[in-house]
Amino acid sequence: MTDTTRIVLARRPDGEPTHDDFRTETVSLAEPQDGEVLLQTLYLSLDPYMRGRMNDTKSYAAKVELGDPMVGGTVSRVLQSNAEGLRAGDVVLGYAGWQTHSVERAKHLVKLDPEQAPLSTALGVLGMPGFTAYSGLLTIGQPKPGETVAVAAATGPVGSAVGQIAKIKGARAVGIAGGPEKAAYLRELGFDAAIDHRADDFAEQLKAAVPDGIDVYFENVGGKVWDAVLPLMNEFGRVPVCGLVSGYNSTSLPEGPNRVPALMGAVLTKSLTLRGFIQREFADQMPQFRREMSQWITDGKVKYREDITQGLDRTVDTFIGMLRGENFGKVVIEVAQ
Amino acid sequence: MTDTTRIVLARRPDGEPTHDDFRTETVSLAEPQDGEVLLQTLYLSLDPYMRGRMNDTKSYAAKVELGDPMVGGTVSRVLQSNAEGLRAGDVVLGYAGWQTHSVERAKHLVKLDPEQAPLSTALGVLGMPGFTAYSGLLTIGQPKPGETVAVAAATGPVGSAVGQIAKIKGARAVGIAGGPEKAAYLRELGFDAAIDHRADDFAEQLKAAVPDGIDVYFENVGGKVWDAVLPLMNEFGRVPVCGLVSGYNSTSLPEGPNRVPALMGAVLTKSLTLRGFIQREFADQMPQFRREMSQWITDGKVKYREDITQGLDRTVDTFIGMLRGENFGKVVIEVAQ
Repeated sequence: MTDTTRIVLARRPDGEPTHDDFRTETVSLAEPQDGEVLLQTLYLSLDPYMRGRMNDTKSYAAKVELGDPMVGGTVSRVLQSNAEGLRAGDVVLGYAGWQTHSVERAKHLVKLDPEQAPLSTALGVLGMPGFTAYSGLLTIGQPKPGETVAVAAATGPVGSAVGQIAKIKGARAVGIAGGPEKAAYLRELGFDAAIDHRADDFAEQLKAAVPDGIDVYFENVGGKVWDAVLPLMNEFGRVPVCGLVSGYNSTSLPEGPNRVPALMGAVLTKSLTLRGFIQREFADQMPQFRREMSQWITDGKVKYREDITQGLDRTVDTFIGMLRGENFGKVVIEVAQ
Repeated sequence: MTDTTRIVLARRPDGEPTHDDFRTETVSLAEPQDGEVLLQTLYLSLDPYMRGRMNDTKSYAAKVELGDPMVGGTVSRVLQSNAEGLRAGDVVLGYAGWQTHSVERAKHLVKLDPEQAPLSTALGVLGMPGFTAYSGLLTIGQPKPGETVAVAAATGPVGSAVGQIAKIKGARAVGIAGGPEKAAYLRELGFDAAIDHRADDFAEQLKAAVPDGIDVYFENVGGKVWDAVLPLMNEFGRVPVCGLVSGYNSTSLPEGPNRVPALMGAVLTKSLTLRGFIQREFADQMPQFRREMSQWITDGKVKYREDITQGLDRTVDTFIGMLRGENFGKVVIEVAQ
C-alpha cells in the first residue's frame, strides 16, 4: 500500500486564494486494479483555469468539491502496472492533480518518450497550453500574413506560443506583459512589439504599437487590457477568448458605467467575432499540433520558458503568485525527480 | 429640370431625434448624364440602422453629413433614362434616400418585376431586412433541428423572418416583442413561444419559454433583453449581432456595475460565439436568398407584415416612432403611387 500526500480544497476562496483555502493530507491509495497503474508524480502543471475550479459556480468543467484534491495535469512515473501497454519505469502524461502519487486508469494516460523532449514540456509548449495557443489562434484567430496579432500574458506558455505561431504565419506579433523584464524577453522571442501593461501610458503605447490596428486579439486576461484593445480592433477582427485571468480573483463586478453596450456596439459596427473556447473542442487537431510544434521547436522557431519550482509544499505559494503574474514562463512544480 | 423635395440632416440628434434635427427642402436636380436615370421615389424604407448614420462617429458605414439628405433604400419609377437597359416606366430598387426624386447611376439599380411580388417587398421581406435575417441566421447562427432560436424585435422585418426561417430549419423559435398584440401575432406566424418584453416578469417568462436553453440568439436590440438572454445561452451558442436598437438613442452608458467581465466570462465558460455583421458581407448569397425566400412566401412558410405610411412629410414622425418600437411590421413610406 502506497501513501499519497495531496493538497485538497478546504474552503472556497473569497477573492485571492490563501493557504487557509487548502489543506495538505496524506492518505493511503488502493492497489491498482485491472487496467490501472500506480503513479509517482514528477511534474505538476499550474494553470490559471484552476482558480475557476475552486468556485461554486457552473462552468465548462466541474468544480473541485470541498475535500477533493486540486486538479491539474501531471507527468508521472509508473511504479506498478496492472495494465497492458504500460510497465514500471514508463513515464506518462495524466491528470493526477496536486499530489505525490495516484492510481489512474491506463486508458486516460499518454505514454511519453523522455528522449524526444524534456518531460516538463508535455505540460507546456508541447502540452495543453501550447495546444490551446495553436488551436485557438489558428482555428478562431486565423491570422493572415501582414495582419497584426496581439496577445496578453505574452510571456506565459499560451501567450508566448500565440505570438511565435503568429510570426510563423507571417503576421505581426504584439505582446503585452507585466514589467520591463518580460517585455524585453518578448523581443528576444521575435515579437515585433512588447508593451508593459503596468506602464501609466499603457493604452497609448499599445495604440502606437499597432499603427494598422489589431486583427486578432487572443484574450487571456480581460480587464483593462481588453478595454485598451477594443478601440484598436479592425473590421472583421477575431477574438479567441481563452482566459480572463485578471478577473479570476474578483468577488464583484467593477464599478460602472456598464460598458456592455459599448462592447456590443463595437462587435456590431466592426463585424467582430468573439469566440470562447477550450482546447479540448479541437482535440482532433492534436496529432498535427504535436508534429508541427515539435518541428518548430527543433527549428528554433518556437522557444519556450519554464518557471519550475521544487517541491509539492511550494505549490500553494506558487499558485497564488501565478495568479498575480509573478511567474515568468510556464509554471511547473517538480514534485519528484 | 425636375425638382426634388428632400429631408436633410440639419443637426446631429442628442438622444432621440426630433423634428429640429431634420430640414425639408426643395432643390433642382441636374439632368441625367450618360448612364444615369431620373427617378421618382415610390417607396422609402425606414430602418433602425439610419439612426447610427446621424451620429458623428466612425461606424461600418459613412455617417450622413450635415445638410445631406438622409439615406435609405427606395423603390422608384424611372421617369427619364440615359442608360442602357432601363427605360421610362421601369421600376427599380435603389438607394435614393429621403426624397421624392433623384438622379442615379443605372449600374447601382436593380430592375424589379412588378408582376412577381408587391413592390414594397423589395424593401422588406425580399430585400435588405429579409436578407439580413437569412444570411445572419444561416451563416452565423446555423440553427440545427431541435435547437432553440430566440429573437427580439420579432415582429419587425428582420426578426419575423429570423423566427420563420428558424422554423423551416427545424428549430424552435422564441420571439420577443413589445406588447401583447405583437406577441399574439408571433404565435400566428408559428413561433413556438412569444414573450412581451414589457412584462414585469419578462426574464422569468423568457426562462420558462426556453426549457432547453437558447442555442442561437439573433441580436437586434441589446439592453435588458440581452441581459435576460445571456444566462440562458447554451454551450457553443451563437449570437449573430445584427442591431442594438434599444441603445441607438442613448447619449451615455448605463449605470454600473460594469458587466463586461460577466459577459466575457459567459463567452469563455460557455464557448459562445458573438459575431457582428452587416448583410452586404454575404452578398454572394443573394441569388439563393431571392430564390428560397420567394418560394417560402409562395408556399406560405414565410409571412410578412408591412407598416406603410403615406407621404414623405410623415417620414420624420414615422422614423421617431419606429425607434420607439411603435411600428408593427416593416416600416415603409409610400412617397408616391
